[in-house]
Amino acid sequence: MKRLDTVTLRDVEEAAQRLRGVAVRTPLIECPALDELAGGRVLLKPECLQRTGSFKIRGAYNMMSQLDEAQRARGVVAFSSGNHAQGVAAAGAMLGIHAAIVMPEDAPQAKIENTRRLGGETILYDRYTGDREQIAREVAAQRGAVLVPSYDHPDIIAGQGTVGLEIMQECGADQPDQVLVCCGGGGLIAGCATVIRALSPGTAIHPVEPEEFDDTARSLRAGKRLANDASARGICDALQAVTPGKLTFELNMKLLAEGIVVSERAVREAMRFAFRELKMVVEPGGAVALAAALSGQVVCRGRRTVLVLSGGNVDTGLFNDIQSEHAD
Amino acid sequence: MKRLDTVTLRDVEEAAQRLRGVAVRTPLIECPALDELAGGRVLLKPECLQRTGSFKIRGAYNMMSQLDEAQRARGVVAFSSGNHAQGVAAAGAMLGIHAAIVMPEDAPQAKIENTRRLGGETILYDRYTGDREQIAREVAAQRGAVLVPSYDHPDIIAGQGTVGLEIMQECGADQPDQVLVCCGGGGLIAGCATVIRALSPGTAIHPVEPEEFDDTARSLRAGKRLANDASARGICDALQAVTPGKLTFELNMKLLAEGIVVSERAVREAMRFAFRELKMVVEPGGAVALAAALSGQVVCRGRRTVLVLSGGNVDTGLFNDIQSEHAD
Repeated sequence: MKRLDTVTLRDVEEAAQRLRGVAVRTPLIECPALDELAGGRVLLKPECLQRTGSFKIRGAYNMMSQLDEAQRARGVVAFSSGNHAQGVAAAGAMLGIHAAIVMPEDAPQAKIENTRRLGGETILYDRYTGDREQIAREVAAQRGAVLVPSYDHPDIIAGQGTVGLEIMQECGADQPDQVLVCCGGGGLIAGCATVIRALSPGTAIHPVEPEEFDDTARSLRAGKRLANDASARGICDALQAVTPGKLTFELNMKLLAEGIVVSERAVREAMRFAFRELKMVVEPGGAVALAAALSGQVVCRGRRTVLVLSGGNVDTGLFNDIQSEHAD
Repeated sequence: MKRLDTVTLRDVEEAAQRLRGVAVRTPLIECPALDELAGGRVLLKPECLQRTGSFKIRGAYNMMSQLDEAQRARGVVAFSSGNHAQGVAAAGAMLGIHAAIVMPEDAPQAKIENTRRLGGETILYDRYTGDREQIAREVAAQRGAVLVPSYDHPDIIAGQGTVGLEIMQECGADQPDQVLVCCGGGGLIAGCATVIRALSPGTAIHPVEPEEFDDTARSLRAGKRLANDASARGICDALQAVTPGKLTFELNMKLLAEGIVVSERAVREAMRFAFRELKMVVEPGGAVALAAALSGQVVCRGRRTVLVLSGGNVDTGLFNDIQSEHAD
């Protein structure tokens, strides 16, 4: 009987079985120019190259593929700023499950369009006045649909953890000294940390957040879940959860090293570095770990560092604006 | 004694030994959205993720690492529109060899700047009035420097062929039905075809060229080297060799299937697809193989296709312009 109050290495390994042929096994990539700049070996896990442009398909498919026939027939509902929306829509299309997704109306146009293109039903709301969770719960209640949470569920966490499992498999005996993972609600990092700390207890796992959305960094220091200011605004649309999740924070409290907070300026510079040197399209929220390394907020010299680039779904307009700015 | 009039599988294998720890072993990447569009399995070899942003470091380092002490002391000279320039400059920096590169003054600014940043000495000339080959030969004669050709040399071809060797190693028993490789002077494809046809005689290797620069397609049909019109202009700056190379064409005549020619419109659309779906930055010349697959000029349905994305060195301005255009 599966426990619903925790996530284990075995849960992640089982998720990896379910995701075979579904999620792309993204490579670990190195960039000599980055190594030289950082003064140490830096490996990149580019989930921007993942199906749907972010890691979110992993958790969504892992959970949805375990629904029974009756649940599948009634469909699922999710709320998401965009990447989870696409993950749920894509998993729905693959599994033949109708997926309705509650999305903020100011989400990147690319994320809304892709969600629809993948067959998802989109329900838009105002990010600053509406309560997406309540809207999603109402839709779910009306339809008898299962709610697929963005992060705070063991099947979601286990699915995202396959990112960490692949990192450890690729690293083999050369275990990383530190792994930097972006953190919104904390599902990706909770899953990754579960695997990585089980297989390599000496590896430090740092959550990275954008300024004004540093709830996990502060919560880790306080030992309890703290919220972001409701007035906070920023370009990292994928990392704007209000507080750490309940289950994710329980896991993260045990597993994580201190949180790192990066400025928007550093995020923009990291997106330019990704364009110029990595030749990869990384969205703002996907670039925070790279920003932490490039801005020197984490010491990479003489260490073996893995950075997760979590997604690449960014509108052309914003991307062009950032690329056209003068470099720092 | 190494023969200078051909390239063998063994030459490429030896090049791979020299390039260990120097060239990035780029992954073979799949994109489910591309598979669905193409109706068959499509694997991408993204050399845009390579050190210096293109495959050119492979050939340059393979040749330059075999120079003797006296040759190294006198330095090397190359002429290049930009990617070979960066490859030669980077190899020079790694081997402690001074590298002077004759570049067209209208080469992408990023390529000129990167060449300098890598320690290369740049000598600019007018692409349409100057004779870069003559300028390079004069500089080489003055300095007693070795000329490092862009493509027409067995060590260069063998180095570039490591792209093909890695493709075959990654594919294992699942040999590709067809491999599409961009073609300027023909060094990359000659090296790749040498390996791939030796290991998998049934695989078809197609050169892909942009319109107006289809010298290889026409030369293959004619059975002799034909030139492009001197008035030809285009955005694929990496693929503007005037004729096929002598040695490359000899090899390619024996090894290649028919040439494919793509429009600039298809190249631009492929660059947008790469941004939107692959989350990769691909330069115009690097996108022609993808353009051939996306525009339906090569049948991918039911076949296993490998596309080489040869580079990602593109100026921000051109990239932004292309991304901002309406899709076809």
